[in-house]
Amino acid sequence: MDAIDRPLKMNKTHRPTILVTNDDGIFSEGIHCLADIASEFGNVLIVAPDSPQSAQGHAITLEHPLRLHKSALFEGIEAYQCSGTPVDCVKMAKHLLRRGQPVDLCLSGINHGSNASISILYSGTMSAAMEASIEGIPAVGFSLHDFDADNPHFETAKDVVRRVVQLFFEKGFGKATLLNVNIPNLPLEKIKDLRVCRQAEGLWREEFTEGKDPLGRTYYWLTGKFECHETDIESDIVALREGYVSIVPSMHNLTHFEAMESLKMQFS
Amino acid sequence: MDAIDRPLKMNKTHRPTILVTNDDGIFSEGIHCLADIASEFGNVLIVAPDSPQSAQGHAITLEHPLRLHKSALFEGIEAYQCSGTPVDCVKMAKHLLRRGQPVDLCLSGINHGSNASISILYSGTMSAAMEASIEGIPAVGFSLHDFDADNPHFETAKDVVRRVVQLFFEKGFGKATLLNVNIPNLPLEKIKDLRVCRQAEGLWREEFTEGKDPLGRTYYWLTGKFECHETDIESDIVALREGYVSIVPSMHNLTHFEAMESLKMQFS
Repeated sequence: MDAIDRPLKMNKTHRPTILVTNDDGIFSEGIHCLADIASEFGNVLIVAPDSPQSAQGHAITLEHPLRLHKSALFEGIEAYQCSGTPVDCVKMAKHLLRRGQPVDLCLSGINHGSNASISILYSGTMSAAMEASIEGIPAVGFSLHDFDADNPHFETAKDVVRRVVQLFFEKGFGKATLLNVNIPNLPLEKIKDLRVCRQAEGLWREEFTEGKDPLGRTYYWLTGKFECHETDIESDIVALREGYVSIVPSMHNLTHFEAMESLKMQFS
Repeated sequence: MDAIDRPLKMNKTHRPTILVTNDDGIFSEGIHCLADIASEFGNVLIVAPDSPQSAQGHAITLEHPLRLHKSALFEGIEAYQCSGTPVDCVKMAKHLLRRGQPVDLCLSGINHGSNASISILYSGTMSAAMEASIEGIPAVGFSLHDFDADNPHFETAKDVVRRVVQLFFEKGFGKATLLNVNIPNLPLEKIKDLRVCRQAEGLWREEFTEGKDPLGRTYYWLTGKFECHETDIESDIVALREGYVSIVPSMHNLTHFEAMESLKMQFS
């Protein structure tokens, strides 16, 4: 893909409000990239975890109180760090904003690692975006597939964010409210295009490393291998493998509508 | 509904293996009810959290090791308590079982509280069941709507579990692999019937109680009110309100298929 210029001037009477969050925490590189692009388009509010919260899924904190502190990490942007999960952060942001203007768009990420296929379920990045979308706020989670951790192509990711956000303000997302955007870790010129996909069927085959702690007690440390046998270019995993940015419109209603009739037959 | 007798003798050459877990923890009443019924049908393996893990969603533990200890709480049943989340417990169970037989059915619960509508996303109970279903293991999460905490009708819930499990072994679940079963907190004779439903559209309007801790620092404690405007008897919230047990076939593929075409138009 070719780099795009800075966005067109917004054809709006008000500057939109954009909520930015993530799961890698407020100190991560990804959220700084995301905030940079978001502030080209609107007034940005950041509420992000004060520590890494990867793989926290849709967890929320009910058993103890949360802390919220203003952050000076982002020049000219109102930012807070929160002691909770990514979903807590979105709830906290809505709490703060309810005193003021509504949110026009929620951006989450840029996640360091894949949230394609089944990883969407474990992902704090995507759960934060989903939490916003439940109230009808258009929301996008961005993830960069930086398997080469020494050389993450955040400049590619920033260009993709700019494209998607520009598209949102120009045309909208159609019937979609929640997008799961995964970006191959490649220089921009090697990215083929954006591609609307479905979530690939795949799974994590968990493995546990068993060991002994210094006191001689057994522990189990979770790891795993991702397994996917898809070959369809419309599935996110295959699109990514082929050098496309995958964009999966996703939803929070988990009903398996197709199964309803067959289940009714069994239960009658 | 009328009470049903103990299940028919299984028409199987092997006794099925049933994995039981929950999110309220191994000491909760619900999992003991569930284990009682499961052991009428098969060989039961329990792996459950060693502490309450409500609202943990699909969180998994990657940053630190897990502990696993045999539990003597369930007479004649192999049981373990695990220091992780509900999803960790299912992964741990699969790890233990991979050394032996496959799992025929996973049962999660009986949760103390509703997992209907959007609550499925926050629910550790349902996320544990979903984790099993990702690998194709038929899985059911059960929740009892015990708003009257002093008088939970676990005998009703046990009857519902027995019905659902018996139905599974007799007829299967059709095209469904994952069921979200919610049970009104009523005496059995006041329950109208089982009803196959879709997930109601609804949301939690979060509220934060702001306070000062003993050191004078501000804290925020999450609470909220559930909001739902559904009137359709095919939605789980309405079915429950009318005295039915709601059964929602659910899925782990979050693709919003209907939105794909409109999104392609926007992105072209």
